[in-house]
Amino acid sequence: SMKLCMIGNRGHNSYVWAGLARLPQVRVVGISPGTPEDDVAPLQATCDSLGHAPVVFADYRQMLDQLRPDVVSVCGPFELHAEMSAEALRRGIHVFCEKPVALTLTQLADLRAAYETSRAAFQGWYANGLHFGAMMGLRYDPAFYTAWRAVQEGAVGAVRLINAQKSYKLGRRDAYYRDRATYGGTIPWVGVHAIDWIAWFSGAAFESVYATHSTQFNHDNGDLEVSALCHFTLHGEIFASASIDYLRPSTAHTHGDDRVRVMGTEGAIEVRDGAVYLINGETDGEVVLPVACERQVFQDFVEHVEGKTTALLGADEVFAVTEACLLARQSADEGQVVHRIGES
Amino acid sequence: SMKLCMIGNRGHNSYVWAGLARLPQVRVVGISPGTPEDDVAPLQATCDSLGHAPVVFADYRQMLDQLRPDVVSVCGPFELHAEMSAEALRRGIHVFCEKPVALTLTQLADLRAAYETSRAAFQGWYANGLHFGAMMGLRYDPAFYTAWRAVQEGAVGAVRLINAQKSYKLGRRDAYYRDRATYGGTIPWVGVHAIDWIAWFSGAAFESVYATHSTQFNHDNGDLEVSALCHFTLHGEIFASASIDYLRPSTAHTHGDDRVRVMGTEGAIEVRDGAVYLINGETDGEVVLPVACERQVFQDFVEHVEGKTTALLGADEVFAVTEACLLARQSADEGQVVHRIGES
Repeated sequence: SMKLCMIGNRGHNSYVWAGLARLPQVRVVGISPGTPEDDVAPLQATCDSLGHAPVVFADYRQMLDQLRPDVVSVCGPFELHAEMSAEALRRGIHVFCEKPVALTLTQLADLRAAYETSRAAFQGWYANGLHFGAMMGLRYDPAFYTAWRAVQEGAVGAVRLINAQKSYKLGRRDAYYRDRATYGGTIPWVGVHAIDWIAWFSGAAFESVYATHSTQFNHDNGDLEVSALCHFTLHGEIFASASIDYLRPSTAHTHGDDRVRVMGTEGAIEVRDGAVYLINGETDGEVVLPVACERQVFQDFVEHVEGKTTALLGADEVFAVTEACLLARQSADEGQVVHRIGES
Repeated sequence: SMKLCMIGNRGHNSYVWAGLARLPQVRVVGISPGTPEDDVAPLQATCDSLGHAPVVFADYRQMLDQLRPDVVSVCGPFELHAEMSAEALRRGIHVFCEKPVALTLTQLADLRAAYETSRAAFQGWYANGLHFGAMMGLRYDPAFYTAWRAVQEGAVGAVRLINAQKSYKLGRRDAYYRDRATYGGTIPWVGVHAIDWIAWFSGAAFESVYATHSTQFNHDNGDLEVSALCHFTLHGEIFASASIDYLRPSTAHTHGDDRVRVMGTEGAIEVRDGAVYLINGETDGEVVLPVACERQVFQDFVEHVEGKTTALLGADEVFAVTEACLLARQSADEGQVVHRIGES
């Protein structure tokens, strides 16, 4: 059996709940709100409803020290993702962290250092080593996963151009979304998925980014940017756009309009409206692929820890994508191209 | 009746032929190959089949001087678009020019100067003044025109973010596509339409551009770029991407995959596969708009000259869009952001 502690309730704990349904060996033994501002009651209520009986801690560090869990999920506050993850890693605990895993390059560097040091310190303790995963659940979306598999199998040849899109309804948001210090910005918070698809589908390293973002028409949401556009160059002159917005009308039938279009030397593949469209030398015009993904992001994380699989997403990719997000935000703040991503 | 001369056969003379079917008052009185390298026979054959009996001139300037046409169409060579147009404008002849109307900023400046000087010189001669139009026929595509009309009528509120796409099959191309000097580059040649949609849908001025382009995997087509990506900022923090490629698989059922997605403060509209999709406060989810465009690009040009209408596209817009293309190409060549479009 495996002991899980959960910190915080800002973000996508739903990935954990969905995973737990497939993981009878995992027990939630402790929960903590992460910050005194937040109420732990909703977290506790869900645990109760799922038959877990965790101990509640005001201080997550005490929880980690007393309960010595195998794994911990980190759901903020956003600005504490990196610190909370580092605290757990230094204790030899595997971490499943909400994205983005850091809101500043300094936080990211500290987290990365804690990961490297701890991974070395706990070498040999675990089948796959100390693991750091992130809640990049959209890799496991059936359509995106199917498209990625097809690209891996050569369906489009060499990837040359990617257009990724995240478009959300703005709705009403908690106060911490209005402050860059606690929200991090729309490029890291929303755009991270699009930027992850770019890294994942291309399989190439980021080299530079130019980005813009705007807080105009944000309905009194302070620092929150409502529109953003990123332009990445990856190794081999692969170009990629990430179009990011909170402009999706409230009357739309879904919250998000997630897309990716991947143009390669031998074909074109696209994810749109949960479907996958492919054109290549073996198709007669555009064909629709059947979509499926048997894997689930938290299950994949746990089974990686258990040595049963290699997770779709590893720590190095999480760090590279997070850095790309933060450098894109920097580009947008500064109005200039940021070069040499990955060498900073 | 109106006298038309046609110069050159590289590009979209088909717009002229389609327009002539609606314009019985227009007679093709002269044709010229534009360059000794090109064969005027196909141009002549089409004229014959349509019942026109033009005189053939080796030298287009002699044609303009001897025949004194009312209007002239200019179809290259591409690198002579600006010079040929300027020659005609200086003679007080209205010009319908293939896009891009200039391949360099110098050519563009010379053309613009010739237009301004000639328009002043021939002031009062024509109902709408001396007219300079371009073969930006995609404004008249039923889907794009319908979407633009909807945006004009407020269907999406204030435009904030635009994603435009041009994707073509590479196929086999004439030798002049392989040389920057005679082709101009993929951003100006293919991208001009996407960049025109950005200008047209936003109604805003270009402020800066960052772009990249690549000749990799171009199947021995010399300088021809197969992929390109442009990132524009327009007045008011409106952002726009133009994704441009020759990567569309040969098995696709259409030559091009033209798209635009316009996100505004009150709605979202998209053109894809010749259809228009709208979501706003008055729709229940996404609705498909019936598409139509009664106007035709050459007819619109001629009727503007005749004072019967105001063409969808005026000289100032043609110059602004051409400049945006050339500065995007410059950005891609130099690897840096180019600012202050319109003030250069």
